[in-house]
Amino acid sequence: MLNKLIAGTAGLLLTCTAGLAVAQVSPEDQIEYRKAGYSFMAWNMGKIKAQVVEGSVAYDQQQVAAAANAIAAIANSGMGALYGPGTEKSVGKEKTRVKPEFFTQKEEVAKVAIAFNQAANNLAKVAAGGDKAQIAQAFGDVGKSCKGCHDKFRMD
Amino acid sequence: MLNKLIAGTAGLLLTCTAGLAVAQVSPEDQIEYRKAGYSFMAWNMGKIKAQVVEGSVAYDQQQVAAAANAIAAIANSGMGALYGPGTEKSVGKEKTRVKPEFFTQKEEVAKVAIAFNQAANNLAKVAAGGDKAQIAQAFGDVGKSCKGCHDKFRMD
Repeated sequence: MLNKLIAGTAGLLLTCTAGLAVAQVSPEDQIEYRKAGYSFMAWNMGKIKAQVVEGSVAYDQQQVAAAANAIAAIANSGMGALYGPGTEKSVGKEKTRVKPEFFTQKEEVAKVAIAFNQAANNLAKVAAGGDKAQIAQAFGDVGKSCKGCHDKFRMD
Repeated sequence: MLNKLIAGTAGLLLTCTAGLAVAQVSPEDQIEYRKAGYSFMAWNMGKIKAQVVEGSVAYDQQQVAAAANAIAAIANSGMGALYGPGTEKSVGKEKTRVKPEFFTQKEEVAKVAIAFNQAANNLAKVAAGGDKAQIAQAFGDVGKSCKGCHDKFRMD
């Protein structure tokens, strides 16, 4: 089952980098877009953290659910297509911290990508429900899945 | 009804700029995050345009639906909170093209924001259905709503 999932997601995430859709987006723009996706997710993670984990901001279930939806929808949007040829190193004004291993360890990348997508979808699901303890747990799982990829595939 | 909608969305989009959640995000980061949101939406708009409008890339219903979901979820994430005090002009490394009028014409901003949110949600709905003609129409409506704001509130 896991192998099937990996194959499926690897297909979704990685093989489409050879597709026409990517050919239309320059390597510089691919880097810009993928960084934009991570940046926008970071903002939404911060909102959930403040409201559900730290309690530094009053809990607003609709805001948290909307933030979780944004994270999940970005996670599900096929960002693997933004790691096409020519995006292994910084291009033009766009700097990248991706490690070279990202482009060779495809099975490992698929694993961390699956873990991230599953965690993000679960966060969106429990955020819709509104149970703070469940959201905190699911938020932690998303954070771990982010770190799982950063530790392996992002330079300091 | 429209007034109620405007009041509601204006509340959601604008008054929360005074909230604690925003106080935690620096003006520079607010500009980074809002630009990231628009950039990531632009990537997803480009995918839908290529597959549904231009036909330059083979139509993949799942990809288009995922792209539309990402646009809608970003549109629904409360980006008004990223136009807090201090974000009227470029800050640090973050440049912004927002016009000063954006911060004074609150009713007009609410109108274009409502139009955008409604168009984005409609695009996500019809993209899930898969009818290309409907998607093309809904995509056009989103594009018009983007332009509606750019023309009024973005510098060239």
